[in-house]
Amino acid sequence: MKPQQRADQHYVSQVPESYGKPPPGLRRHMFDVIFEADTPAGRRFDIALVFAIMLSILVVVLDSVPGLHREYGTTLNLVEWSFTVLFSIEYLARVICVQRPWRYAAGFYGVIDLLAVLPTYFSLLVPGSNLFLDIRILRLLRVFRIFKLTLYIEEYTRLGEALSASRRKIMVFLSVVLMAILILGTVMYVVEGPQNGYTSIPVAMYWATVTMTTVGYGDITPHTHLGKAIASFMMLMGWGILAVPTGIVTAELSARHADRRQGAARILAARDCPSCGSSGHEAASRFCKDCGASL
Amino acid sequence: MKPQQRADQHYVSQVPESYGKPPPGLRRHMFDVIFEADTPAGRRFDIALVFAIMLSILVVVLDSVPGLHREYGTTLNLVEWSFTVLFSIEYLARVICVQRPWRYAAGFYGVIDLLAVLPTYFSLLVPGSNLFLDIRILRLLRVFRIFKLTLYIEEYTRLGEALSASRRKIMVFLSVVLMAILILGTVMYVVEGPQNGYTSIPVAMYWATVTMTTVGYGDITPHTHLGKAIASFMMLMGWGILAVPTGIVTAELSARHADRRQGAARILAARDCPSCGSSGHEAASRFCKDCGASL
Amino acid sequence: MKPQQRADQHYVSQVPESYGKPPPGLRRHMFDVIFEADTPAGRRFDIALVFAIMLSILVVVLDSVPGLHREYGTTLNLVEWSFTVLFSIEYLARVICVQRPWRYAAGFYGVIDLLAVLPTYFSLLVPGSNLFLDIRILRLLRVFRIFKLTLYIEEYTRLGEALSASRRKIMVFLSVVLMAILILGTVMYVVEGPQNGYTSIPVAMYWATVTMTTVGYGDITPHTHLGKAIASFMMLMGWGILAVPTGIVTAELSARHADRRQGAARILAARDCPSCGSSGHEAASRFCKDCGASL
Amino acid sequence: MKPQQRADQHYVSQVPESYGKPPPGLRRHMFDVIFEADTPAGRRFDIALVFAIMLSILVVVLDSVPGLHREYGTTLNLVEWSFTVLFSIEYLARVICVQRPWRYAAGFYGVIDLLAVLPTYFSLLVPGSNLFLDIRILRLLRVFRIFKLTLYIEEYTRLGEALSASRRKIMVFLSVVLMAILILGTVMYVVEGPQNGYTSIPVAMYWATVTMTTVGYGDITPHTHLGKAIASFMMLMGWGILAVPTGIVTAELSARHADRRQGAARILAARDCPSCGSSGHEAASRFCKDCGASL
Repeated sequence: MKPQQRADQHYVSQVPESYGKPPPGLRRHMFDVIFEADTPAGRRFDIALVFAIMLSILVVVLDSVPGLHREYGTTLNLVEWSFTVLFSIEYLARVICVQRPWRYAAGFYGVIDLLAVLPTYFSLLVPGSNLFLDIRILRLLRVFRIFKLTLYIEEYTRLGEALSASRRKIMVFLSVVLMAILILGTVMYVVEGPQNGYTSIPVAMYWATVTMTTVGYGDITPHTHLGKAIASFMMLMGWGILAVPTGIVTAELSARHADRRQGAARILAARDCPSCGSSGHEAASRFCKDCGASL
Repeated sequence: MKPQQRADQHYVSQVPESYGKPPPGLRRHMFDVIFEADTPAGRRFDIALVFAIMLSILVVVLDSVPGLHREYGTTLNLVEWSFTVLFSIEYLARVICVQRPWRYAAGFYGVIDLLAVLPTYFSLLVPGSNLFLDIRILRLLRVFRIFKLTLYIEEYTRLGEALSASRRKIMVFLSVVLMAILILGTVMYVVEGPQNGYTSIPVAMYWATVTMTTVGYGDITPHTHLGKAIASFMMLMGWGILAVPTGIVTAELSARHADRRQGAARILAARDCPSCGSSGHEAASRFCKDCGASL
Repeated sequence: MKPQQRADQHYVSQVPESYGKPPPGLRRHMFDVIFEADTPAGRRFDIALVFAIMLSILVVVLDSVPGLHREYGTTLNLVEWSFTVLFSIEYLARVICVQRPWRYAAGFYGVIDLLAVLPTYFSLLVPGSNLFLDIRILRLLRVFRIFKLTLYIEEYTRLGEALSASRRKIMVFLSVVLMAILILGTVMYVVEGPQNGYTSIPVAMYWATVTMTTVGYGDITPHTHLGKAIASFMMLMGWGILAVPTGIVTAELSARHADRRQGAARILAARDCPSCGSSGHEAASRFCKDCGASL
Repeated sequence: MKPQQRADQHYVSQVPESYGKPPPGLRRHMFDVIFEADTPAGRRFDIALVFAIMLSILVVVLDSVPGLHREYGTTLNLVEWSFTVLFSIEYLARVICVQRPWRYAAGFYGVIDLLAVLPTYFSLLVPGSNLFLDIRILRLLRVFRIFKLTLYIEEYTRLGEALSASRRKIMVFLSVVLMAILILGTVMYVVEGPQNGYTSIPVAMYWATVTMTTVGYGDITPHTHLGKAIASFMMLMGWGILAVPTGIVTAELSARHADRRQGAARILAARDCPSCGSSGHEAASRFCKDCGASL
């Protein structure tokens, strides 16, 4: 598709025809509404589904707040079940209306759709509210519903392509950073030692990551003078990796911009068409673009 | 306007003629001074107004400091009222001298101008100094005067345009970041749990934001090993989003720069075609690309 | 080598022929396997060695964790010795199969390979587990094995070249930053003083580095109002060095992009010259710039 | 000077002839050595002076460390006085050997040179070691000697030019950031209040700077839910100002790179010279650059 068309299609159902379009009939009508977005009904379905997903995530998030859980727990639970039933019906509809249901159910989106409903059913099997860990794990899975949203915005595809084109450079870069974290982390482990918070090489590597990414929690900090010096070097490295390129790029662009400003007058001034007097010709032009006379 | 002219006009009154220019007379003279900046009087008015705004904001800021409030409270209050009266007169002048006052009063700048004076009047209605929250809210509103300054620098328009042109890309990018914050925040909520500070999903999302934006307060930090590992991944992601692109961009530019250096030998500046006089031939060229003559 | 070929060669043995290729025989066969990567055997050797290095580093890292050291210390020690013996055999093989062994042993990679095995032997000479510092230093040296990995990915060469091309700009930039750290650090030492944590100029410089690289541990923070003001200035400088260039670069690109969008109407893709067939004329052109014929 | 020449001149004395060159004689010889760098003597003087400056700064820095001050205080004081005498002689030499000494003494570099020596003399007037503040201020002034170093590296001039060319954009950008700090700081002052650490608007603005520059000390953190939400918004803004442009720039470059990769084949594939069969002609070429035949 030409970029112009793609930009207009905000919502594109990306389910491939590989799932199998059913023959015309009720199932076909369902398929067109659920998987395609050409028809008004298909469009409205998509928009409604996006809102349902976002609301259901909000319910999960609010339910995790102890105060809200105490006060509105029952209501939130009710809303959560409504969504679960809704998504279950949607899942069944999807499975029914395609020719090759296993293709859908085993694919990425099929698994996501299933993970969106199963946890709430599991919570029936895990009755006791003492089992906090189970409950928290179940809530986590429901949050994965958000991945369904990316189906709908096709700009993400372009972002994904951009990333994957630079895949190799990213890996080389990251491996250099990881090696620095490993080596400098080990150095600090030796220099500072467990009595200053650097209890093992993995912990020192965690601190090195915190420092080189300029996050700087402060839960572990260097205490020896040599440690502070090494840490300063690491900070300048982590920040410098951002600052040096931007500075160099800007210097280049400023230089070119300055040259262009000075040279702009030269390129245009010297190129007036002798016949019609118009200016602004490309240097490579051999004939005046306005009157056709030879330059 | 050509960019050259715009650059010279540091101060541009952006009130559109939509407010309605009154017929020539006293009102018209006021309009020219207040809303336009062509005349010396108009210019001086604008500069005086900018200074007044900045001073009035300074008064609000200083009054919030407990020590200064105790010592100079009365003086500051007096100065604040002077400015309020001044801005009220200016507001009335603006309303009077336009043909369509409602157009102005309901627009962005009209509302700001009103918010610049109303709070001080409200403070008369809210006498008791016990009501600290009210007072703090009133101070907040007065600070909005600063928005009046943007009227005067038209460079902001260009910045706003640049932002709005990239509006879609910004939204896609931000939504990816927000999804990461939601999902990784929920993961940490499950992994670390309330006993380690991650008391609910919203709080965990706050921590995730603090971490991925590399701010790193340290008020909440991971305690489990798995939590530290996930946090390290998030930090590398937040910092990497800045570092990877700058690194790639620099690598591209360095490569082109290096090619240019090597290729300099290929392009000889002195290579003018003896027949047609055109330059810019590759050093390896044997024939002129414009006229075909031998080089 | 053309870039296309280099991209395919993921693993390149970079040992130069300066070590001296032995005459055909057993030694030659060893040389081809160990130092070259043309043959399948050579390739497999390289891959196996990479994995061995990574595993041996993992053993060092895990052994530093007190809990794991207590539980699995004996096993880890056994594995560590296996690797040491393996790497010793490999080192001896390398020394044996080249014509000029001293060339190898004194070079960068030879020293690294030796440092990879010596520490574990030293630990035999340092028997007592009280000598914690010695043990930690020994572990550090073993981590240097990781440098052997860079032999294998030739993308690093390109990264190294890119850095060294911009060598001078990097040094100018860093020296400006270091001067700022020195001067502003000293200012804060004077303003805040030892009672607020700034115990000496070196410590204040450490704090200045933590602040300007936006790491911000929080172990030392300004307490006086003037100190907070100066610190704010430093933070804006450190962050601004990143933000201002990216903002300017983006403004430039947006401007060019906007111009291009507006100018799109001027350039019609379908504008081929009927006479000579050339395309890429400005929409406003009336004559072909290559042949002069009317459009 | 052409950039080629300037790059070779690492050390350029930037003292303008405005100081007045004395007639040939002893004073002229001193002038050539001190202010110019053409002669070997001039060069050696410059290098010696740079080292002297750096050593004298090191003495100041080391003297601020309490431990070193106690142990080596006398030695350091002796070395400090040696440098002071040396710099005094140098200052007198400079004043003597120019025609217009006031021009030098009142200029930037003259003041710096004077500030480099006066503090140590002042310390004679301020005898008591109780006056800690005075002593620390004196040390601060001595650190300004470092500004003399910038005389010697002319790359700084280029950096300064690059900055000053973008002067206006930088100011617009910074003013937007400062407005955000003022407004959002005031909002947090209202929302959180003094009981949560936000004791006044200036303090809240300090916190806003710490947050938006992603430094994040953690000395002040939001405690209310609304405060944490606003803080998250501010963090995303401060970090986003860095991340969004770099992401957009990279997307643009990746797109162009991808296009070029795809289009490279088109441009070269379609342009084979019919006569000699060579490829790789520019699309604008009308004649083959290798054989001269018409394309």
